[in-house]
Amino acid sequence: MLNVGVIGTGMIGQDHIRRMTQVLSGVKVVAVTDVNPALAAEVGARVGAAVLASGEDVIADPAVDAVVVCSWGPSHGQYVLASIAAGKPVFCEKPLATTQQDGLRIVEAEAAHGSRLVQVGFMRRYDAAYRALKAVADAGDIGTPLMMHCAHRNPIVPDDYSSQSAIVDTAVHEIDMVRWMFGQEITAARVLIPRKSRNGGDLQDPLLLLLETADGVLVDVEISVNIRYGYDIRGEIIGEDGTAALGELSPVSVRRLGQLSAPVPADWRERFILAYDVEVQEWIDSIADGGAPLGPSSWDGYAAAVVSDAGVEALRTGNRVQVALVEQPKLYRAVPVPS
Amino acid sequence: MLNVGVIGTGMIGQDHIRRMTQVLSGVKVVAVTDVNPALAAEVGARVGAAVLASGEDVIADPAVDAVVVCSWGPSHGQYVLASIAAGKPVFCEKPLATTQQDGLRIVEAEAAHGSRLVQVGFMRRYDAAYRALKAVADAGDIGTPLMMHCAHRNPIVPDDYSSQSAIVDTAVHEIDMVRWMFGQEITAARVLIPRKSRNGGDLQDPLLLLLETADGVLVDVEISVNIRYGYDIRGEIIGEDGTAALGELSPVSVRRLGQLSAPVPADWRERFILAYDVEVQEWIDSIADGGAPLGPSSWDGYAAAVVSDAGVEALRTGNRVQVALVEQPKLYRAVPVPS
Amino acid sequence: MLNVGVIGTGMIGQDHIRRMTQVLSGVKVVAVTDVNPALAAEVGARVGAAVLASGEDVIADPAVDAVVVCSWGPSHGQYVLASIAAGKPVFCEKPLATTQQDGLRIVEAEAAHGSRLVQVGFMRRYDAAYRALKAVADAGDIGTPLMMHCAHRNPIVPDDYSSQSAIVDTAVHEIDMVRWMFGQEITAARVLIPRKSRNGGDLQDPLLLLLETADGVLVDVEISVNIRYGYDIRGEIIGEDGTAALGELSPVSVRRLGQLSAPVPADWRERFILAYDVEVQEWIDSIADGGAPLGPSSWDGYAAAVVSDAGVEALRTGNRVQVALVEQPKLYRAVPVPS
Amino acid sequence: MLNVGVIGTGMIGQDHIRRMTQVLSGVKVVAVTDVNPALAAEVGARVGAAVLASGEDVIADPAVDAVVVCSWGPSHGQYVLASIAAGKPVFCEKPLATTQQDGLRIVEAEAAHGSRLVQVGFMRRYDAAYRALKAVADAGDIGTPLMMHCAHRNPIVPDDYSSQSAIVDTAVHEIDMVRWMFGQEITAARVLIPRKSRNGGDLQDPLLLLLETADGVLVDVEISVNIRYGYDIRGEIIGEDGTAALGELSPVSVRRLGQLSAPVPADWRERFILAYDVEVQEWIDSIADGGAPLGPSSWDGYAAAVVSDAGVEALRTGNRVQVALVEQPKLYRAVPVPS
Repeated sequence: MLNVGVIGTGMIGQDHIRRMTQVLSGVKVVAVTDVNPALAAEVGARVGAAVLASGEDVIADPAVDAVVVCSWGPSHGQYVLASIAAGKPVFCEKPLATTQQDGLRIVEAEAAHGSRLVQVGFMRRYDAAYRALKAVADAGDIGTPLMMHCAHRNPIVPDDYSSQSAIVDTAVHEIDMVRWMFGQEITAARVLIPRKSRNGGDLQDPLLLLLETADGVLVDVEISVNIRYGYDIRGEIIGEDGTAALGELSPVSVRRLGQLSAPVPADWRERFILAYDVEVQEWIDSIADGGAPLGPSSWDGYAAAVVSDAGVEALRTGNRVQVALVEQPKLYRAVPVPS
Repeated sequence: MLNVGVIGTGMIGQDHIRRMTQVLSGVKVVAVTDVNPALAAEVGARVGAAVLASGEDVIADPAVDAVVVCSWGPSHGQYVLASIAAGKPVFCEKPLATTQQDGLRIVEAEAAHGSRLVQVGFMRRYDAAYRALKAVADAGDIGTPLMMHCAHRNPIVPDDYSSQSAIVDTAVHEIDMVRWMFGQEITAARVLIPRKSRNGGDLQDPLLLLLETADGVLVDVEISVNIRYGYDIRGEIIGEDGTAALGELSPVSVRRLGQLSAPVPADWRERFILAYDVEVQEWIDSIADGGAPLGPSSWDGYAAAVVSDAGVEALRTGNRVQVALVEQPKLYRAVPVPS
Repeated sequence: MLNVGVIGTGMIGQDHIRRMTQVLSGVKVVAVTDVNPALAAEVGARVGAAVLASGEDVIADPAVDAVVVCSWGPSHGQYVLASIAAGKPVFCEKPLATTQQDGLRIVEAEAAHGSRLVQVGFMRRYDAAYRALKAVADAGDIGTPLMMHCAHRNPIVPDDYSSQSAIVDTAVHEIDMVRWMFGQEITAARVLIPRKSRNGGDLQDPLLLLLETADGVLVDVEISVNIRYGYDIRGEIIGEDGTAALGELSPVSVRRLGQLSAPVPADWRERFILAYDVEVQEWIDSIADGGAPLGPSSWDGYAAAVVSDAGVEALRTGNRVQVALVEQPKLYRAVPVPS
Repeated sequence: MLNVGVIGTGMIGQDHIRRMTQVLSGVKVVAVTDVNPALAAEVGARVGAAVLASGEDVIADPAVDAVVVCSWGPSHGQYVLASIAAGKPVFCEKPLATTQQDGLRIVEAEAAHGSRLVQVGFMRRYDAAYRALKAVADAGDIGTPLMMHCAHRNPIVPDDYSSQSAIVDTAVHEIDMVRWMFGQEITAARVLIPRKSRNGGDLQDPLLLLLETADGVLVDVEISVNIRYGYDIRGEIIGEDGTAALGELSPVSVRRLGQLSAPVPADWRERFILAYDVEVQEWIDSIADGGAPLGPSSWDGYAAAVVSDAGVEALRTGNRVQVALVEQPKLYRAVPVPS
């Protein structure tokens, strides 16, 4: 039984606590904390976990085997660094860091530690459809991949969402997915600007993000975040001899009123809830007996941050922006990208 | 934490033990037994459960809160009856009983006990696609249901599989599903005999089973058990104003060699693995704090056995055979069919 | 250029005249007639055809190379017989005859004539989807066919439509299609009665028609004629090793309001308009230079009538009714079923 | 009956002659010519058409009501200009002209003539799926269009095919389709270069062409011309509130060998044969009684040439290239884009 301490008991923190308490196997939430002590107290009482004063207290608690970081984004880095310092495995919701400098600091700290402790919450790698897609691509059935078409569609976004968010918060999932799918770094980014939707008010929505990988795979990502009809994630890989795409996955098809129709997921929760379950269960299983995590690493978090920054600059300048990563520490080369 | 004892550590027993040990939440396997003591010892050791001499010992063990019966079919009845006698919740893999008389005995024993203890392993009720289908039907979107078309296809069956098995072991899943889907009893059965597949040797395969419900819904079930191409479960409800069908659920679609294609599941495990997980988790959650199970009841197991017997007679005689159930004890009327 | 005379200028007659005048190649409508002379005059004037007093006059007109019969059903037989007597090719809209006796009379007359003159308007044999389905079945890709599931759905039918119409006017298309698809006669029919739709008033709707072929292929046909949502024709052949079904054929798919949807045809015209064009063009091409028609024959029309009668009796009695055909004249054996 | 003269009896010319002789209504091929007189003689004899010495002779022949130009691309312009000079309607296969200067000359000649005589062979406007897509977009069901994703895939191209061909011969269909679909001019083009397929040898294949329309709709076109698996044309419009895409249109779906599959068209003929039929029939119908053609105009041919040139320059330079059209003559503004 893995004893976990959770830093941050907001929406996503509560969801992970529910998951670890009511859904998954081999895990117990033993300590929680939040910047809002009353909220922490309420959530902790509900699951019988100790309520501690700070993230640092959670990390230091000898009852805590591993840490889950779900606090406000800008605070992620400090808790991950503290966990590394304490030698404890830490699962950090994305983003790993809000600047690439902070990301790099974590990479360096973990590399200095000498073994992996950090896993970043890029859950798409755990989605059954993406895994099936990667299996087809890896099997060579469609020849060498040359291009990929993606769409990331949200029905609506909050008022404080900016064009920058479209890259940093939304397309970051495609950025990580592409690196994982093709086992290559992204080397350049470009953003093209279509006609603006009335649904987004002043927001420039949609965008077309173009990514290039080290081997020249060209990826286009439609980012539409106010498209109303539903939450829709699509991807098609173009190989030399064929293509492979995410399937439709509709549980039911209905014929009525002149239409054959199938429901589209309403939001990311509906679309990816099973991926979250698999992600956290595999994390638990990998570290349960003192093992290292096998999922997205600090390096993946750092690289995603650098590509996101390049995307933001591309959006601002209209230019093709090259991605400059530091040399990859040996630690991350030793760990093959999990399939 | 619910402490469970498992009777029968064969294929399905081991799968449930794996599920309760590695996948689900709030459950611990504390005792096991099997007619093969060496097998029980091996499985028990693997998960740290006590290895007991008999099913009766498991049921009697004070450490055991609830019982899971995965033994040889003909022994199911005695362990369920013993669990009722002990006042312990019992999850019984299908069939609840191999004769309707045995099924009725369990119904009567549980009714005499006065509250539900028994749940039968009809996992389709927990499948996301069937649940979505039922939600559409229940919402009235397609009008009152009038017919249903089903297909139950297996790529291959073992040598000892008989035409009778096609009803009792295979179509029994559709029999329970239809009762649950429409909230009605099945009142008659008929079997028609198509041209025989060379793949089944002497076996009469396929069959067309026709079921009628109390309100006149006519259900046809194609049973093809040597169809080679995959494991395929299909269902479409015909309502007054439209139809609703199980979706295709393909995680990936591939374009190569002149075809757009999607994989079909290879076997029932691949198709229904998540349904099994949901089934057992919901059972655990329902009884964890002393509650009654909410899933398929003794009555459902009994009714399925009676309809199966009618189907077997229909196959033997070529006639339309009416289904005769005893009067339903109040206990089962009190428990609404879960949606 | 084939000169055609049309008997009957009602809805279907006008449609064939439009087709032969504005769509197809190598044909000219030179004479028309109708029981309503004013209508015939109007239609004839529109396309520059002679307006004659009777069907017999059309058949006798030396300017007429071939006859198209679109009059009231009960009059079909007399015009077909007169065309045979005149030695002129005749395309007869279904039904060829309203009784099997009348159908047989035509078969015998044509057989006595010694070569084919008659083609019956079963247009499904000319539909691209049915032809693709037959090509897959004939290629052996799914093994020997054992069963077929069909659905014939109409959104609405007129007030004078009876349960008998459901067999004789509606399912007759499936009856001919099955004979053509499998190259076998139908040997027995049965009708099962599901719960009745409120949409059909007093009409027993839907029905489940069950057909058996000479080789034991079992075909189930759902007939739903007031299902509101659209006109939907479905078919799936179950072979030993796989299945083949009519595709969906939607020209467009739309994502809006939470649904991925595609339009269903509104009526038979929309669904089969191209099949009608192909049917008549192939008929013209086959007889243009004095050749014999290659499409559905008198024998096909006669056999469809006998099977329809068996279906009507099955509906009336609830029994399985065997189909009794006369011995097939050599003429029809000599003409292979067109693929 | 429209009497047509055909200039060029090569592959496409013979196909149009077959269409006008054996498929369509209201048309007769009365004269043919070809640079290869023996070929012209053979084709002419087959359909009973006069065989003339030159395109100019065909245009001048008083028996010829209208001209169809299917000769070698670089000769198109001269025959179209001669037809305009003769005041005869002319259907010109694409390209209207191989340089934008030649295209402009035709536009100016026709504008000087004062009424439309020219139609260019962009057949996608006549495809049922594209028309259904346009109908959805025009109806406003998905909100204002903002983007469009297209793919144009060929299984294989001839050895003399160049990267320039990918724009000028292949993507020109998307160029015209986009102008028609959105009723706007294209204002800029850009080409991005993905990893190269081994299937194309030295050819840079695939390409990603990006087009911008006057109102800011951003269109991406994947051009893959050696993708082996089939001929596949895809298109999805992204609106403010939803999306609309070309449907799959598979006549049959097959379940065998672990896959649910549907055939992909093998080549453009299979995919667009009906569109060609509709295109030529509508052309015939529009000009039959002295009317003006309603399909793609000289202006459309000219604009497609200018955009193609911009695409070729974008491919050569890597830059975003703006499209500069002359002012549109009033003649073309008067003719609304047909829906």
